[in-house]
Amino acid sequence: MTAPLLRPRHDPSDQARFARSAAAAQGSGLRTEDFADWLAGRRLAHRFSVDRIPFAELDGWSFDEASGNLGHRSGRFFTVEGLHVSTGEGPFREWHQPIIKQPEVGILGLLVKEFDGVLHVLMQAKMEPGNRNLLQLSPTVQATRSNYTKVHKGSDVRYIEYFTQPGRGRVLADSLQSEHGSWFFRKSNRNMIVEAVGEVPPHEDFCWLTFGQIGELLHLDNVVNMDARTVLSCAPLGGGERDGSALLPDGELLSWFTAERSRHEVRVRRTALGSLPGWRRGADAIDREDGRYFSVVAVGVQAGSREVASWSQPLFEPCGLGVTAFLLRRIGGVPHLLAHARVEGGFLDTVELGPTVQYTPENYAHLAKEDRPPFLDLVLAADPGRIRYEAVHSEEGGRFLNAESRYLLVEVDETEVPLDPPPGYAWVTPGQLTWLVRHGHYLNVQGRTLLACLNATAVRG
Amino acid sequence: MTAPLLRPRHDPSDQARFARSAAAAQGSGLRTEDFADWLAGRRLAHRFSVDRIPFAELDGWSFDEASGNLGHRSGRFFTVEGLHVSTGEGPFREWHQPIIKQPEVGILGLLVKEFDGVLHVLMQAKMEPGNRNLLQLSPTVQATRSNYTKVHKGSDVRYIEYFTQPGRGRVLADSLQSEHGSWFFRKSNRNMIVEAVGEVPPHEDFCWLTFGQIGELLHLDNVVNMDARTVLSCAPLGGGERDGSALLPDGELLSWFTAERSRHEVRVRRTALGSLPGWRRGADAIDREDGRYFSVVAVGVQAGSREVASWSQPLFEPCGLGVTAFLLRRIGGVPHLLAHARVEGGFLDTVELGPTVQYTPENYAHLAKEDRPPFLDLVLAADPGRIRYEAVHSEEGGRFLNAESRYLLVEVDETEVPLDPPPGYAWVTPGQLTWLVRHGHYLNVQGRTLLACLNATAVRG
Repeated sequence: MTAPLLRPRHDPSDQARFARSAAAAQGSGLRTEDFADWLAGRRLAHRFSVDRIPFAELDGWSFDEASGNLGHRSGRFFTVEGLHVSTGEGPFREWHQPIIKQPEVGILGLLVKEFDGVLHVLMQAKMEPGNRNLLQLSPTVQATRSNYTKVHKGSDVRYIEYFTQPGRGRVLADSLQSEHGSWFFRKSNRNMIVEAVGEVPPHEDFCWLTFGQIGELLHLDNVVNMDARTVLSCAPLGGGERDGSALLPDGELLSWFTAERSRHEVRVRRTALGSLPGWRRGADAIDREDGRYFSVVAVGVQAGSREVASWSQPLFEPCGLGVTAFLLRRIGGVPHLLAHARVEGGFLDTVELGPTVQYTPENYAHLAKEDRPPFLDLVLAADPGRIRYEAVHSEEGGRFLNAESRYLLVEVDETEVPLDPPPGYAWVTPGQLTWLVRHGHYLNVQGRTLLACLNATAVRG
Repeated sequence: MTAPLLRPRHDPSDQARFARSAAAAQGSGLRTEDFADWLAGRRLAHRFSVDRIPFAELDGWSFDEASGNLGHRSGRFFTVEGLHVSTGEGPFREWHQPIIKQPEVGILGLLVKEFDGVLHVLMQAKMEPGNRNLLQLSPTVQATRSNYTKVHKGSDVRYIEYFTQPGRGRVLADSLQSEHGSWFFRKSNRNMIVEAVGEVPPHEDFCWLTFGQIGELLHLDNVVNMDARTVLSCAPLGGGERDGSALLPDGELLSWFTAERSRHEVRVRRTALGSLPGWRRGADAIDREDGRYFSVVAVGVQAGSREVASWSQPLFEPCGLGVTAFLLRRIGGVPHLLAHARVEGGFLDTVELGPTVQYTPENYAHLAKEDRPPFLDLVLAADPGRIRYEAVHSEEGGRFLNAESRYLLVEVDETEVPLDPPPGYAWVTPGQLTWLVRHGHYLNVQGRTLLACLNATAVRG
């Protein structure tokens, strides 16, 4: 054995390359000001239509006679089942809800490559039936296992070989990250960033952009889809190495998180969709008598640019626009975010870190003042001069219909939120979140969206 | 806000302090050569007896009429239920087994303190009913939530305040780590190392030892218990920082692990203990007709040094002595261990890294040669000159009866195991494992034992 077999465990040049790309306001491909026309062109090139349909018109999907669970005759894709959650704390100590069960692990992959010495990302114009504007910018690859093992009987997933075949690329990030814990039962996806080896064949639905250009597009409403945002959060754009300073050293942050994960006694039980207290099934929707939270509905899809030409499927449609925000405070000159250790019924392990605020205000409007979510009113009443970032983004358009949230970064000062926040909250730096996101199940998908927005838009100030 | 609020995220002096303690062959307290007498003294000071009893003589424990599950009338402690696991691969594609369900998170805590400038660990002589020699060296604190919330109605857990009350200590390590995935359903414990602030009151069942002294004791059979070993593995004794070289850079190691966790389709379903195919319930044991794997049995305990004076409880009793070994190979002069991404039915998430070999040979003796576990025969036939570490250790004596395994580190060369090992295996450095163990669910409990043995005994060479 000779020493050249060994490689440094850590290559510090990677972080510098990401930073250079984030600072590049234009790249070697599409110019940012031409992006809207390009996306409009892709929209014209394909015919899409999505229509609400009654459950009875779903093709291949049906309710199980015994359980009332909704599933596909192939046994693949996903099922809609029931969930009973009890937490023994807070204004909602126990509840029943429909939940999406999709145990297979998908791949969300960004293919990157240097042009003129700057990393570019291959982004895709992709239709998803639940997005209000249907076509958004998605990662290079967005594939469920059913997708790339061809349960759809459709075409191959383009560029998937870079993420599944050794030697086609160099992996820069690869972790299992959770999806929405309120709507998915223990779902996670591989979030991968791979640098291509060799020439990458072009395709008209794909374009190369720098991280700086994507940061610019993240200021627009409903353009960069959720799958793209979560993988972007895994890029070491905002530091994340263990150097630097913070209010809590890394070891204390890990200890706080471990204590939060240990102190909650969350009991989760899968139940039958057909017998969920408080929920009713009609011909067109499964919803609640009080009209809150979300409904399960069905859509029929006609599309040209997807793996198959037409299909139908269930979607979750939330009630109302979400508000998702990190409070941001400069401590000793260093920006810190107020992270919240959130219980969501579908998490693999009790809690993950989320934004300070992650609520649909309508669902809480009926509560007494002391039961209203902490910091929600502070965000809703924030002076526009304090808002450092704001855009409306869609959640996973392949499973959720018109699920949109207003994402914000709101700066506060020491008179508004103390250094020692209430139980369940901690001040952390963006670099610490980037450090944690190398591993799975620390930061929830909404937190990852805001981390991506913060890191990728930093160039604009 | 002023800058002094900030602290460095990482304090490099911690690692040096652990290294100094690991190098200290004697400390300021008990001398290593006096340890055996001290332990014998503690054994004399307390009366212990443990006897096998029929299930009918269990006090407070009974089989549920409908499910056959075994539980305590208080609803606390743990239950023994059934599990159905299917993996779709290997010689065992599907099986049924009893499993321990104990959803609460316990604390395993080491209290440390500097004497004469060297870190010492407060170790406890603690009786556990399943240990063949009953009394072993355990962490300062070893408490289930039932323990320290007094479901036992016994005495307080000594020194617990250092691990639960802010300001009593400085946390040096704190992570949620899995227990035995073959016998526990998704059980994890907080593994904590806390440096005491102020004087620590002495107690006759406790002694202060350096990490070097504990390393010496780890060469003895059945002295350092499993709970102590797992927390010891969380100490940054063997490096673990991102500097240094390895066959796989850290990013590639994470990607390999993520791929391993994603590629297995493990289906786990909790079932009723009363109707497990292949298992039978007698008056004294639940066991298998073929005599393999383990039995569920019951014991009555009389003890003076435990929180309560006497009790009875179920235990799992494995059949045969386990063999648990890492193959070790110097690559470019740097020691690497051959880690195995293992599926265990009770893991929270599909796979964790384990030793190269972790089997009870008797359970595999009936298999055809091609189905025998990889590398097992290589370990069993290892030349004594290649064995870098060997000792018999007990598994969790509070849940398992006479569960012992021969732990080994066996050095191999390039003619025996290639740099590119079979699927499911990877060469990793001890420093990389120490880096991963800051987070939960990467390294299984057997792997943590061997990491602790490797790191803490390195002083002896």
